[in-house]
Amino acid sequence: MVFIHSTTSVTQGVDTGLKRSHVDFSRHLSLEARARLPNPIKSIWKVAQVKPGTINMGNGDPHHSLYPICEMNFVVPSIDEHDPVQSWRSGTGEQDVIASFKDEPCTLSLRTAFAYGAGAGLKLVRDTLADLNDRIHSPPNHTVSLSLGNADALTKCFRLLGDPGDSFLCEEFTFSAMTNAALPLGIKWAPIRMDKDGLIPSDLERTLSEWNEATQGKRPHVLYTIPCSQNPTGSTLSLERRQEIYRIAHDWDIVILEDDPYYFLQFDLDVNQSTIQEYGYTRAMADVLPRSFLSMDYDGRVMRLDSFSKIVAPGMRLGWVTSNNFLAEKLDMLTDSSSQHPHGMGQAFIAELFGSEGWGVDGFMKWISSLCSEYQRRRDLFMDVFRQKVASSGFATAEVPKSGMFVWIRINLEHHARFSSSQTPTAPGGPTTNTADLMDELFKKLLDSGLVLMPASTFAIVDRTGRTSASHIGDRVNFFRATFVGTDETIRDGLTIFGRTIEEFFCF
Amino acid sequence: MVFIHSTTSVTQGVDTGLKRSHVDFSRHLSLEARARLPNPIKSIWKVAQVKPGTINMGNGDPHHSLYPICEMNFVVPSIDEHDPVQSWRSGTGEQDVIASFKDEPCTLSLRTAFAYGAGAGLKLVRDTLADLNDRIHSPPNHTVSLSLGNADALTKCFRLLGDPGDSFLCEEFTFSAMTNAALPLGIKWAPIRMDKDGLIPSDLERTLSEWNEATQGKRPHVLYTIPCSQNPTGSTLSLERRQEIYRIAHDWDIVILEDDPYYFLQFDLDVNQSTIQEYGYTRAMADVLPRSFLSMDYDGRVMRLDSFSKIVAPGMRLGWVTSNNFLAEKLDMLTDSSSQHPHGMGQAFIAELFGSEGWGVDGFMKWISSLCSEYQRRRDLFMDVFRQKVASSGFATAEVPKSGMFVWIRINLEHHARFSSSQTPTAPGGPTTNTADLMDELFKKLLDSGLVLMPASTFAIVDRTGRTSASHIGDRVNFFRATFVGTDETIRDGLTIFGRTIEEFFCF
Repeated sequence: MVFIHSTTSVTQGVDTGLKRSHVDFSRHLSLEARARLPNPIKSIWKVAQVKPGTINMGNGDPHHSLYPICEMNFVVPSIDEHDPVQSWRSGTGEQDVIASFKDEPCTLSLRTAFAYGAGAGLKLVRDTLADLNDRIHSPPNHTVSLSLGNADALTKCFRLLGDPGDSFLCEEFTFSAMTNAALPLGIKWAPIRMDKDGLIPSDLERTLSEWNEATQGKRPHVLYTIPCSQNPTGSTLSLERRQEIYRIAHDWDIVILEDDPYYFLQFDLDVNQSTIQEYGYTRAMADVLPRSFLSMDYDGRVMRLDSFSKIVAPGMRLGWVTSNNFLAEKLDMLTDSSSQHPHGMGQAFIAELFGSEGWGVDGFMKWISSLCSEYQRRRDLFMDVFRQKVASSGFATAEVPKSGMFVWIRINLEHHARFSSSQTPTAPGGPTTNTADLMDELFKKLLDSGLVLMPASTFAIVDRTGRTSASHIGDRVNFFRATFVGTDETIRDGLTIFGRTIEEFFCF
Repeated sequence: MVFIHSTTSVTQGVDTGLKRSHVDFSRHLSLEARARLPNPIKSIWKVAQVKPGTINMGNGDPHHSLYPICEMNFVVPSIDEHDPVQSWRSGTGEQDVIASFKDEPCTLSLRTAFAYGAGAGLKLVRDTLADLNDRIHSPPNHTVSLSLGNADALTKCFRLLGDPGDSFLCEEFTFSAMTNAALPLGIKWAPIRMDKDGLIPSDLERTLSEWNEATQGKRPHVLYTIPCSQNPTGSTLSLERRQEIYRIAHDWDIVILEDDPYYFLQFDLDVNQSTIQEYGYTRAMADVLPRSFLSMDYDGRVMRLDSFSKIVAPGMRLGWVTSNNFLAEKLDMLTDSSSQHPHGMGQAFIAELFGSEGWGVDGFMKWISSLCSEYQRRRDLFMDVFRQKVASSGFATAEVPKSGMFVWIRINLEHHARFSSSQTPTAPGGPTTNTADLMDELFKKLLDSGLVLMPASTFAIVDRTGRTSASHIGDRVNFFRATFVGTDETIRDGLTIFGRTIEEFFCF
């Protein structure tokens, strides 16, 4: 396979990637997206703005002199600290102020940030994130649109691409809050089998090749995947799997929704110190971060969703979607006629944080690098305590996650005295074991002991697309999603409860 | 008609309003809204949070110690100034700082504001706005949900209430960016006739009573209206019309979408100074602000949309929806599975602004009062210059708006030498005059002269619901929407161009 890298820092440009592969993306649009018209008022303005110096007495935009905010500032860690996250946590580090002004010079004036804008976000902020994209992913030509975080972005993609009756592909255990959001739109989910390394490419290809449009409806044209720290299983796709999945997507003309909020939280990275010295953190991190689907997207079939939720704060409600120019325009039209552009507060903050008076891109990547170390420390603590308090009994095991926030804990129910593996399924593909019942019992026992873990059943996608190959996912829900993002105390106390409770559960 | 006022400052409570009228709101829900399930992960948490002290190892929420922001400040006008807007504009007034902290006491901790939250927004912020609602509208029991401004709120209401093929009612000239947003959902618009005082109740009732479900499809069950400074006509509904419209909505079981972003910008208010002295600005303003549909909503059939866009800044992207508990819950579920909750930056700002360390509700209403005076000054300037430079020719006239930002300028085309009123319509209800052509000519002439006004045709809703009574709206597009929100210079220069150009247009 040939990957074409035509790095560009502009948000609009020549369609090199698309022209090369001649993919017709209009076939992927929902009826709703096809029917959407541009805002007639904005169309008038496109005509009107041709002539400079034109007086606007058309729009009802409050004048900036009446915004009751002339300055906005955020106190943040100084990025000059050796290990900024540790200094910040311990309260010993220097602080910086990220400031925006209405009437004084700054990277992005509050006059602009607090005005109405285009749904895709302000050009300066989009260009900033396009530049970050270029440095990390070197994608073939793509467009960046801002989002309100990945839930906003993903559910917009569902509306953009899905019609009632469509089936979309997803990992068989996935972030059910999102897959559920698609159900009222009439989208069905076709779950793909996973192993400890995530989505299995051969099952993806089998699902597509065995698809029977007569009995199952239209063949899926969209894959929703979480490639890093897959939610809930914590798995991270290898480069080989990514390349294989992309090839399958190419062969079957699938749009890949790459939902990657944990991308910037990678562990065991072999960051080259001399690259940091010579080229800075961005280059050094880009060298060791995983290859995204976006990075190999010579077709333009990837819509990549990035978010500040896990690396700044969830309440930011800010992220960015990177996609081909055609899909980006349709996405922006949906944003213009729904949520509108993201809030100016967050856009101004990002502009200044990445600007010359703030951290800059490289400072931001230094924070990311430091954050990776901190999460890695928590993961290591979690796995250490897990081995001592839980795995030692033999009743539970877990893979060591390479990224993100989650550990997928397997409960070895086959060792349980009351485990039964010879039930008759009540429905085709239904469970042949009492796994779900035992897990429900254990979940409640843990709850009584004061610990919440998320049961796998919460994330299991039951296949309702009429496939004949039964998935029996009910037999594979013997997992809990646990997280190591809490404090050290939470990790120690939680896993102690877990170890004690699971022994009781198995032994009494 | 009896209006029942059971003021309450909580966001959830006993259904007094609804029980009284026994309206079944489930019939108003779209198929999509009916099919929506609660987030399964949040459901688990509802179970888990019963027990205090439970350790959460379930969720992937970053710990607040890793948010790289410990303080957020906004520099705002001091509300102690006699006329805070004038002091702010002239740069002579004192300033205040609205501050939020992560690790120090404040009204709403950044630990909470920057975490994940419920789609409806944080309770403290919702309660703050419910309190404002109570003081202004004294609504029968309702629930407040935050929104990302009225475009977000309104388009969510469309999805909540509209199925493909439904017809919704609206003013015949309206904010077409929003009505257009409903079209791809398959919603058709049934425009209601207007006069200089806004929507004509008798035409609303006639439309409903003459509706033929056999030829026109389901009778409309939703009315979208902008009661104050109607966009684009600038009209404000009288109390009598509001009461009549509410009665019709009651009789025909219509949900009213009360889109009211200009509500707080009212002119010629007779604010009682001694009420200000004795009870403060909120009470004094509430006494003179118009009665909203919400205030008379004993059925619970109003979804009222308020926004900070016009009174703080559009880039805030923050507003609130007030509706009955049933519809609020469905709206919140849609938010949970789309945009998610509004950004923490705006929620924290509002919490502190309205809090004990900020302006408080009364300070906020003092700002509003001062803002009304400033917009009234601009309106008066506009109307003065308009009379001198434009109306004096007799070629254009305009009503004096009572609120908001817009003047609806009538072009007296019947005086134009090339006006023709005997065309044969090309379609039923089509134009019988050359109004549209002449207006297009004038629009382009103005553009060439360096002025943009918004042509009425941009806002005209052509009836496609198959009604037999032809609306001939194309004959009534002889209007421009102008705004007086610009600077004094913009108003003077713009209207000078307008006056000169319209004379040329009529005389040559």
